[in-house]
Amino acid sequence: MIPKSEIKYIQTLFQKKFRDAEGCYLIEGPKILDEALTAAQTAVKKIFGLSEWIDQHEFRYPDIEMNVVSSFELEKISQLKTPNQVIALMAKPERSGIVSPQQDIVLALDGIQDPGNLGTIVRIADWFGIPQVVCSKDCADVYGGKVVQAAMGSIFRVPVCYEDLPVWIVRQKRTPVYGAVLDGTPLKQVKHVTSGVLVIGNESKGIRPEVAALLTEKITIEKTGGAESLNAAVATGILLAYLK
Amino acid sequence: MIPKSEIKYIQTLFQKKFRDAEGCYLIEGPKILDEALTAAQTAVKKIFGLSEWIDQHEFRYPDIEMNVVSSFELEKISQLKTPNQVIALMAKPERSGIVSPQQDIVLALDGIQDPGNLGTIVRIADWFGIPQVVCSKDCADVYGGKVVQAAMGSIFRVPVCYEDLPVWIVRQKRTPVYGAVLDGTPLKQVKHVTSGVLVIGNESKGIRPEVAALLTEKITIEKTGGAESLNAAVATGILLAYLK
Repeated sequence: MIPKSEIKYIQTLFQKKFRDAEGCYLIEGPKILDEALTAAQTAVKKIFGLSEWIDQHEFRYPDIEMNVVSSFELEKISQLKTPNQVIALMAKPERSGIVSPQQDIVLALDGIQDPGNLGTIVRIADWFGIPQVVCSKDCADVYGGKVVQAAMGSIFRVPVCYEDLPVWIVRQKRTPVYGAVLDGTPLKQVKHVTSGVLVIGNESKGIRPEVAALLTEKITIEKTGGAESLNAAVATGILLAYLK
Repeated sequence: MIPKSEIKYIQTLFQKKFRDAEGCYLIEGPKILDEALTAAQTAVKKIFGLSEWIDQHEFRYPDIEMNVVSSFELEKISQLKTPNQVIALMAKPERSGIVSPQQDIVLALDGIQDPGNLGTIVRIADWFGIPQVVCSKDCADVYGGKVVQAAMGSIFRVPVCYEDLPVWIVRQKRTPVYGAVLDGTPLKQVKHVTSGVLVIGNESKGIRPEVAALLTEKITIEKTGGAESLNAAVATGILLAYLK
C-alpha cells in the first residue's frame, strides 16, 4: 500500500514540466531496473514493485527504499498498457558542462520529436560508444516514458544534454561538422574520421537552416529505390557505423 | 453513411485471419492513400473518407468506389487513436512465385515480430532498392495496421512473401548467405557484394539455429560502447548501406 498522495506525485512525473521541476523521472520493468541498479545505483531513489519482485531484491539493496504495491496500484503509476512488475523513481543526472574528449564523434540532434526515435538513437549512440548526445531544445524529453523505454539501459550510460544548437556548434569548435542531408556527398565518398560532430535533423523537416549553415560536410545516404525517406534512427545508425 | 454490416466487415480486417481469408487489408490517412493511388491504383478497392477528402478526390478517380463517412463512423473503422480523414480497403497483391534477379541482394527476415520493426525494415528495403523481402512464417503480418503505418508507401513497392525460411534458403541457391550475428566477421572486413541473401534475426533471440546453419558468412556490427543490442531495423539499415 502506498498513500494516495504518493500515487498522485508519481503521476505528475508523466509530464515533462514536473520532471524538470523535481529533477526526477520514472523507469519501468525488471530489465531496465536491473540495468539501473548496475549502472546508476545511486540515482535510484525509490522502488515500487509487486511483492514477488520486492521479495527477491530488497535484501540485496538495503539502502534503497522499496515499497510493495498491489497490481491495482502499479497500474495507476504505470505509463504502460501492461505494467511490468516494478517502477522506480530516478534522480536525473547533472548534465550541464559535460566536456567530452576532442578525439571522438559527438552526436547533435536537431528537432528529433518522436520519442521512439530519440530513445533508439540514444541506444545506437551507446552501441557505438558516443561520449555525448546534444539535443536542440525542441527535441523530445529524454526522460519521458516512451524515450526511456526505447533507449533501455543506454539512458544510464550516454550523457544527453539540451542546448541552443547553433550556439553550441559554434562554441564547441569541434570539426568537421557533418550533417545528414538529401543532397550532399554520397556516404561512401566520405573519409572515415575519429572526431567531429554529426548532426541528425528532424524526421520530416530535416536540419533547420540556422544549423545547416554551420555544417562543414554534408552527407547523403544514397538511395537506389523508391522510399521517400529513411527513419532518423536508421540514418543515425548507418552514418555512425560508417564514420566510426 | 455506411451500413453497419460494412463497418463490421472492415473491423474483421483488423485481424490477420480475416485479412488472409479475404485477401484484403486496410490503409489509413491521406499520405499513404496518395501513394497507393500512384503506385498501386488497381489494388484500391473501396475508399471511406470524410466529405472534405472525398470531395477533393472523387472526380479524379471515377472508377474507384468512394463512400463519405462521418467522423464517428471513421473512428469505428480506424485502428489509429486519432483517425486521419480516410481509410481504403486494398486487395493484397499476389506474391507467390516471385523471382528476383540473381544480381541483387535479397533480404530474409527470421522471426521479426515487432510490427514497427517490420514496417521500418520494408521502408529501408525500398530505400536501397531491394527487389524482394522473404519473411519466415512467424514474422509479423506485413498487412497489419502498425506494419503498414511504419512502412508507409514502401508496402506498395517492395514484394514481401512468407516462406519456410530454411527450405527457401536451400532452394533459392543464392550465395553468399550473410547473417547478422554477435560473433561474426567485423562488418568493415566484409567485401562489398552485388548479390546474395542477407538474413536478419529476431529482436531478442537472433537467427534460429536451423537458419544459422545455412549462413555462408556471419557479420557483426562492431560495438564499442555499452548497449546490449541494436534494434533489428537499425542493424538492417547499417548492413544494407554497407553491402550495397
